[in-house]
Amino acid sequence: MATVPTINDIETAAKRIGSYVHRTPVLTSRAINRMCDAALYFKCENFQRVGAFKIRGATNAVFSLRDDEACTGVATHSSGNHAAALALAARWKGIHAHVVMPDNAPRVKIDAVRGYGAEIVFCEPTLEAREATLAEVVAKTGATVIHPYNDLRVIAGQGTATLELISDVADLEAILAPVGGGGLLSGTAIAAAALSPRTRVFGCEPEGADDARRSFESGSWVPSVSPDTIADGLLTSLGDLTFPIILRHVAGIITVDDEGIAHAMRLVWERMKIVIEPSAAVPLAALMKHRSAVRGRRVGILLSGGNVELDRLPWVVESFAKAED
Amino acid sequence: MATVPTINDIETAAKRIGSYVHRTPVLTSRAINRMCDAALYFKCENFQRVGAFKIRGATNAVFSLRDDEACTGVATHSSGNHAAALALAARWKGIHAHVVMPDNAPRVKIDAVRGYGAEIVFCEPTLEAREATLAEVVAKTGATVIHPYNDLRVIAGQGTATLELISDVADLEAILAPVGGGGLLSGTAIAAAALSPRTRVFGCEPEGADDARRSFESGSWVPSVSPDTIADGLLTSLGDLTFPIILRHVAGIITVDDEGIAHAMRLVWERMKIVIEPSAAVPLAALMKHRSAVRGRRVGILLSGGNVELDRLPWVVESFAKAED
Repeated sequence: MATVPTINDIETAAKRIGSYVHRTPVLTSRAINRMCDAALYFKCENFQRVGAFKIRGATNAVFSLRDDEACTGVATHSSGNHAAALALAARWKGIHAHVVMPDNAPRVKIDAVRGYGAEIVFCEPTLEAREATLAEVVAKTGATVIHPYNDLRVIAGQGTATLELISDVADLEAILAPVGGGGLLSGTAIAAAALSPRTRVFGCEPEGADDARRSFESGSWVPSVSPDTIADGLLTSLGDLTFPIILRHVAGIITVDDEGIAHAMRLVWERMKIVIEPSAAVPLAALMKHRSAVRGRRVGILLSGGNVELDRLPWVVESFAKAED
Repeated sequence: MATVPTINDIETAAKRIGSYVHRTPVLTSRAINRMCDAALYFKCENFQRVGAFKIRGATNAVFSLRDDEACTGVATHSSGNHAAALALAARWKGIHAHVVMPDNAPRVKIDAVRGYGAEIVFCEPTLEAREATLAEVVAKTGATVIHPYNDLRVIAGQGTATLELISDVADLEAILAPVGGGGLLSGTAIAAAALSPRTRVFGCEPEGADDARRSFESGSWVPSVSPDTIADGLLTSLGDLTFPIILRHVAGIITVDDEGIAHAMRLVWERMKIVIEPSAAVPLAALMKHRSAVRGRRVGILLSGGNVELDRLPWVVESFAKAED
């Protein structure tokens, strides 16, 4: 079995999921273009079903299952967008979804997963507890585990966003995607390499969770240890499927600090009037940090999602903290 | 001279401003439709140039000036979206704009007006000071005053949003617009009465600034006295041009409290992933308050703007206040 999805897999995924997920719009901002002296094209996966690109990979995985696999349902551990995505994809397919979530997961995410009809199994907020709990669930139910990123069907599904972006916007000189586990970045890189080989793909990562940069620069896998960043979708380490794809097809990994991420997030809210989550702001933050390198260029940016805890916005916490000084 | 704009004036305005302003999208939300058991069509003027519908009226007014009027520039007093709109419209036309603003106006609005090249004259935050200062500016410069809503050209310009909405969405049973001074509501009512006479138009207003409801119900003009609401775009009283149009063409005025406004605003942010200002949330709040009346109906909602102070969100202040209890 292949360990790298091909452009055919991505095109097949696009057909498979096309009637379920949105073809999201590509937006531009006069004001941000002026600030960056570049032409930026924002692929708005914040408007995607469940509020994030994750529904693409989850739907492709669920609708790729053989009947004998599907009948026992699917399972995953995730505190984030993948959990909601898998829950909804399973509902579309009419099968059970079991989601292992840490008991400190944000209320809004628990509600979303439950709202889509998945069964939630809570565990302690450690990777060990999550994996042990997931193993128990699988042993009991026979469910098929759909990993949030280290899965060929998921990677192919995530690549469909870039398929659409490239078809909507010609001659992009670069595409910037956030990188956590690397599902979106590797799908993006495969799609761009096949369809627009002159487009350079960059992964964008918080400094406080820079395992992808360290893995990429050293050429050997480095895990994410005690990650600390407001970009809560990007805490995970690369997988053994995503890392080789990234090494082969990605031009570089750019890191940015949380202040830069919060600034970019706020800029998108203020100027584009759209809600994006911190992880989705990482590519714009990276671009603004290296403004001179993009001057005059056409750049695609994957706005990965829009699921934010509206009570806990980075700049509000900051302004209250300042007021207390 | 006519004291009521006609549908012809609105159609002429649409042609006059068409190459300057955006034709904004109409968005829908599966989740909000489900919650309201209705089909809601949101006209997204938060994506409009300057972040609000106000650019429509201001541009129509500025580009309606005779040459001898235009050469001495335009002036207004406004702390809000009309100020930025008039500044930008004047820049497009290549004429001066003088904007009288209270010295406690939000920084983001001052920056916007200045960024569009207008000259700002600050005054004390009272209506008297604003009007006196504006009179001085006009005496000195000979500028033409463009009132934010009590102006036939402005009313006709605001009506173009509904022209687009009706052309994009057939068979609306109702259209809900926020009402402050009544420019948007009266333009909406004229457009709907002419183009879709079965569509009932409702004005939606904060309880803390309910002069339109009281004027409408009593049939005689009642001023807005000490208005108090988070919907800071809706503090003003109806004008002597807008009130008769509203009396004639509007089906009713619905009021909502600030809690309902904050809830509706948050709902739009969370579910639609778009940023709207409190004033823009008033129609959805009104609809949710009278949910049984809209069951199964097709309703258009004018999301009037997206200019929010992101440091001062109603629900964040609320949650901090609660934490202090």
